[in-house]
Amino acid sequence: MELWYSQRQTENITFSIKVRQHLFTARSRYQQVDVFDSEEMGRFLIIDGIVMLTSKDEFIYHDMIVHVPMATNPSIKRVLVIGGGDGGTVRELTRYPSIERIDMVEIDEVVVQACKQYLPNTAGKLDDKRVTIHFQDGSAYVRDTNNQYDLIIVDSTDPIGPGEGLFTNEFYQNCFRALTNDGILVNQCESPFYEKNAREMRRAIAKIKRLFPIAEVYQYNMPTYPSGHWLFGFASKKFHPVRDFQPEVWKSFGLNTRYYNTDVHTASFMLPTYVREQIDDPDSE
Amino acid sequence: MELWYSQRQTENITFSIKVRQHLFTARSRYQQVDVFDSEEMGRFLIIDGIVMLTSKDEFIYHDMIVHVPMATNPSIKRVLVIGGGDGGTVRELTRYPSIERIDMVEIDEVVVQACKQYLPNTAGKLDDKRVTIHFQDGSAYVRDTNNQYDLIIVDSTDPIGPGEGLFTNEFYQNCFRALTNDGILVNQCESPFYEKNAREMRRAIAKIKRLFPIAEVYQYNMPTYPSGHWLFGFASKKFHPVRDFQPEVWKSFGLNTRYYNTDVHTASFMLPTYVREQIDDPDSE
Repeated sequence: MELWYSQRQTENITFSIKVRQHLFTARSRYQQVDVFDSEEMGRFLIIDGIVMLTSKDEFIYHDMIVHVPMATNPSIKRVLVIGGGDGGTVRELTRYPSIERIDMVEIDEVVVQACKQYLPNTAGKLDDKRVTIHFQDGSAYVRDTNNQYDLIIVDSTDPIGPGEGLFTNEFYQNCFRALTNDGILVNQCESPFYEKNAREMRRAIAKIKRLFPIAEVYQYNMPTYPSGHWLFGFASKKFHPVRDFQPEVWKSFGLNTRYYNTDVHTASFMLPTYVREQIDDPDSE
Repeated sequence: MELWYSQRQTENITFSIKVRQHLFTARSRYQQVDVFDSEEMGRFLIIDGIVMLTSKDEFIYHDMIVHVPMATNPSIKRVLVIGGGDGGTVRELTRYPSIERIDMVEIDEVVVQACKQYLPNTAGKLDDKRVTIHFQDGSAYVRDTNNQYDLIIVDSTDPIGPGEGLFTNEFYQNCFRALTNDGILVNQCESPFYEKNAREMRRAIAKIKRLFPIAEVYQYNMPTYPSGHWLFGFASKKFHPVRDFQPEVWKSFGLNTRYYNTDVHTASFMLPTYVREQIDDPDSE
C-alpha cells in the first residue's frame, strides 16, 4: 500500500509526500493538527492540511527567522514569539546566552503538546528556563503590551483561520507599541510567486510600511512551501538589516548554522526584480 | 473531469499541475516530448515525464543562465548553446546586439519543432539571423571544436537519457578546449536539496573544478523544479563572476528583466552553508 499526504498549494498545484506512518491526529479547538513520518522529509507537521514544517527543511526557516534579526542587533535581550508552537524559533533563540527572556504566545496547546511528543528536535528547547509559554491569542496579548520587547517574531500560519488576526493593521500597530525604541519585528510574509500568496504578502507589507520607518523583506529557499521561494518581513524603528548588520559580532558567537551565514544574510535582501517591484509598490494589485 | 500532470520529483515527492489541455505528444528518436496547457503555469514542456519549462517561471531560468555570464564579460561575441531546444536561452542571448554568432546544438529536432509551434514566446528568436541550429549530439559537436567560443551554455536535461553525455569529464574537457582564453562555461547543475539531485551536482562540480581555474556555483529560485532551489555552474579560464562582474556596463544595455538584476547577480553566488559545504568538498558523498 502507498499512503500519500497531498496539499493543494494553489487550486491547480499539488505537492505530495509519501508517508510512512500517520503518527498523530487531533481536532483542537482551533484547527486540525497532524504529524506524519516519511522517508524523504522525516517527520512533518500539518495544520489544517498545510505543511507547517518537515524535519528535513525546518532548519532553513528557523535559521532565517532568528539569525537575521539577531545579527542586525546582537544586543537583543527580550523576545516575543507569536505562534511558533513547534518550538523551532525558540530553539534557535535559546542558542544566544545573551537573550534574557523569551515569551511565546501560542493559541493552540495541542500543537505544542504534539510537537513535544513527536518532534523533539524542534520542540526540545521549550523547557529552557528563559522561556514562558502563554496559551492565548497573540493579537490579544500585544494589545496590553508597551515598550517591552527588543524583538517580536511573528511565526504564524497563513492569514486564514487562527492566523488571520496576525495580518491586520491593528496587530501591527500593537506590535509597534510593544517594541522598545530599538525594536525589530520579523514576520512570516508568504511568497511572491503564486498570486494567492503574493496578494497576502503585498497586503502585509503595505500595512507594515505605513507604520515602521524601516520595512524590508528578505527571502529564502523553503522546499516544502509553495514555489519554494518564501519571505519574511523585517520592520524596525531604528536598525536597518543591511546597513546596521554586524557580521563580525555574529561570527564571534560561534554558532554553527546549516543555512544561515553572513553572506546569506546580505543576499537574502537582494530581491529579484519581480519581487522588488511588489515590495516597492505593494498597493498595486 | 480533472486532468493532472504529475512528476515524481524523488521516489517520495510528487509535484502536480492541473491541466487544461494536452496540446502535443510525440515519441522522438531520443525521448518522449509533451506540451500541456494549464491555468496556473500556462503552457509547459515535459520531456520524459519531467518539467523542462513552464510559461510562468521560465523567465527565471533563462534570465539566470544568460545574464550572469554576459554581465561578467559584456564583450562576449561568439556563443555555443548545447541543448536548449525550447529556445529560451537563445531568446535572451539575442537581446545583446553585441553578440555576433550563436550556435545551438540540440540533439532532438522534435523539441524545437514542438516549441516553435506551441511555445512561441520561448522559441520565437530561434530564427534570428545570428543563430545556427545544429541538430546533433552536443558532446560530439565539441569534440571537433577549438578556441571558438567566448561562452558555452550547457542548457541540458538531467544526467539521464540523452543528457548524460553532457555531465562527463570528456565533455567538460572538450568545452575547455572549445573556449577562447576569455571563455566562460555555464551549465545546468541540478540542486543541492534532494540527495538524488545533490549527488549529480557534486559530481559535475568535482569534474569542472579539476579543469577550470575558476569554478563557482550560483543559485536561483525555480518553482517548478524539485525543491525550487536550483543551481548553475560558472566555470572560466579568466573571469571571476563576482570580482570581474561589470554591473554598470550591464545596466548601460538597458535590458528589462523580471528576475535578474545586478543585486541578484551578486546574491546568487552567496550560498547557504549546506550548499557551500557541498561545493567546497564535492568529493564527499
